[in-house]
Amino acid sequence: MRRIALALVAALACSISAAAADPLPSWNEGAAKKAIVDFVAATARAGSPRFVPVAERIAVFDNDGTLWSEQPMYFQLAFALDRVRALAPENPSWKTTEPFASILAMDIPTALADPHAIAQIIGATHAGMTNDEFAKIATDWLATAKHPKTGHLYTEMVYQPMLELLAYLRANGYATYIVTGGGAEFVRALADRVYGVPPQQVVGSTIALRFEPNDGKPALVREDKIDFVDDGDGKPVGIQKFIGRRPVLAFGNSDGDQQMLEWTAGGSGARFVGLVHHTDAEREWAYDRHSAVGQLDKALDEATARKWTVVDMKNDWRVIHPYEMKAPQPPQP
Amino acid sequence: MRRIALALVAALACSISAAAADPLPSWNEGAAKKAIVDFVAATARAGSPRFVPVAERIAVFDNDGTLWSEQPMYFQLAFALDRVRALAPENPSWKTTEPFASILAMDIPTALADPHAIAQIIGATHAGMTNDEFAKIATDWLATAKHPKTGHLYTEMVYQPMLELLAYLRANGYATYIVTGGGAEFVRALADRVYGVPPQQVVGSTIALRFEPNDGKPALVREDKIDFVDDGDGKPVGIQKFIGRRPVLAFGNSDGDQQMLEWTAGGSGARFVGLVHHTDAEREWAYDRHSAVGQLDKALDEATARKWTVVDMKNDWRVIHPYEMKAPQPPQP
Repeated sequence: MRRIALALVAALACSISAAAADPLPSWNEGAAKKAIVDFVAATARAGSPRFVPVAERIAVFDNDGTLWSEQPMYFQLAFALDRVRALAPENPSWKTTEPFASILAMDIPTALADPHAIAQIIGATHAGMTNDEFAKIATDWLATAKHPKTGHLYTEMVYQPMLELLAYLRANGYATYIVTGGGAEFVRALADRVYGVPPQQVVGSTIALRFEPNDGKPALVREDKIDFVDDGDGKPVGIQKFIGRRPVLAFGNSDGDQQMLEWTAGGSGARFVGLVHHTDAEREWAYDRHSAVGQLDKALDEATARKWTVVDMKNDWRVIHPYEMKAPQPPQP
Repeated sequence: MRRIALALVAALACSISAAAADPLPSWNEGAAKKAIVDFVAATARAGSPRFVPVAERIAVFDNDGTLWSEQPMYFQLAFALDRVRALAPENPSWKTTEPFASILAMDIPTALADPHAIAQIIGATHAGMTNDEFAKIATDWLATAKHPKTGHLYTEMVYQPMLELLAYLRANGYATYIVTGGGAEFVRALADRVYGVPPQQVVGSTIALRFEPNDGKPALVREDKIDFVDDGDGKPVGIQKFIGRRPVLAFGNSDGDQQMLEWTAGGSGARFVGLVHHTDAEREWAYDRHSAVGQLDKALDEATARKWTVVDMKNDWRVIHPYEMKAPQPPQP
């Protein structure tokens, strides 16, 4: 009897130890998880034929749809629309001017129908203040705004498996960067706290800044002019300008990430290229080739042709959002 | 006798130990060195009223005239002129086209008289190849080209006291960045090896890059279009875009650094702002208010008014270039 008890204790200890040693507990066992773990182990182990020196261990991640959700609209667009509503009292003319009138009437499809609408909305909500003021506005919004479907803070709608992957990479000497089509300053307002990615490791779209000396109290003022779009071809360009090294690992989820993935894959030596495929209509959303947000079509074909790792969200992720882990059990009937 | 010998040994050991403990041995004792050491000690010591958390310890340095010499012309201009000469056989029309004809005739003042000359020279020498090809061209030139006055490699004309300062800052948890008016890719070709500053910590002027997918062998091609000038107002703008945090320490040497210094000084909490003043006509060069290269006029007035630290190269630096330390003694007559 005592022997059996001891064996049970030992087995339990082993299983606890194995669980504690799993760096990616929210990933189900499968090809995607195995490919990641094999790659990281091989590139971080001295003497391995696929070894990568620490200085070159650069990992880049798209944000929208790769690190957090992006439905029913990019979260930064939700922020911009909330800002239009908040600023409407100071801008009475918006009641009769598009795209603002439709936003205030909650008719978003009409508001966004004009191809210039987004630039107008960005100009009205992301420019005209100092950069520090904008950072505070974004931080305050992120601290309180809730997602319309889940009721959770937007910053809670990050992907638990990707948080684990970021931490796992950093523990193995990788520098983790975000390379986002979203605004660099908007994403910086959450990246350090939520992803552990400091501001200097966020590459994103930018608007022009104007330096004002102000006699010793200088400011950087955000101008109504987009000067870099970090999407599509812009992603490898942004990577080279800001990081100056070609990444060895890249993760995206949409056609806007395709060039970043190609640029990463095209380097010599060990490379890992991954795509998050949104396949879980119950726990998250299911969309790809025909989605208006985060369309994944050409990049999915290329991933298949080039044998990139495609993460099937429904099957590969045991948990999607961190709040699922803390969710209370449903009452028993 | 034995006692005296022991005392001598002890004194010698003490003096060796003191020398080893000095993080800035090429700096003479004086106000500038004291200000630097006091600042670093106070900002890195937990519990100090001027303590700065590690994540915020961002130090930025201009390059030309601050980390290496810049006379008789910016070293990158010397590179560009050498490239014009190297490429001349492939471009026979240059013999009769300015500014190339004057460069080939070794008449640099005439070549640079037209305000568009620099852009033409950059277009002819810094664009049209892939970014990787350009990096190799710059690296090869830096490995062989010699300075016309000293006969040393350009990379040997760095300032020993600033190499010590960079290392001292890093040893105290600072991230050291270069923020240069020079080309980011040109400076990256030397920064890691010479300054210990990796590519992602070099902010500089950039030309447009074009992504070419090339069916799985993608390239970034340098276009004949300057898209960011990291000088003057551009320096604080570049700092915000690339680093996303305001530095706590900044060093420059010319009016082109003034806005970066103002931006650094204008933050709250502990700040250090330094200017290298070129005052040593014998060991380096002496120039300031009326120099065509590295003019230091308004920034010198502001440094005086705001009590920024002005480093007097002649008096504050025991050694200027590393090769002085290895120089053979002159033969005795």
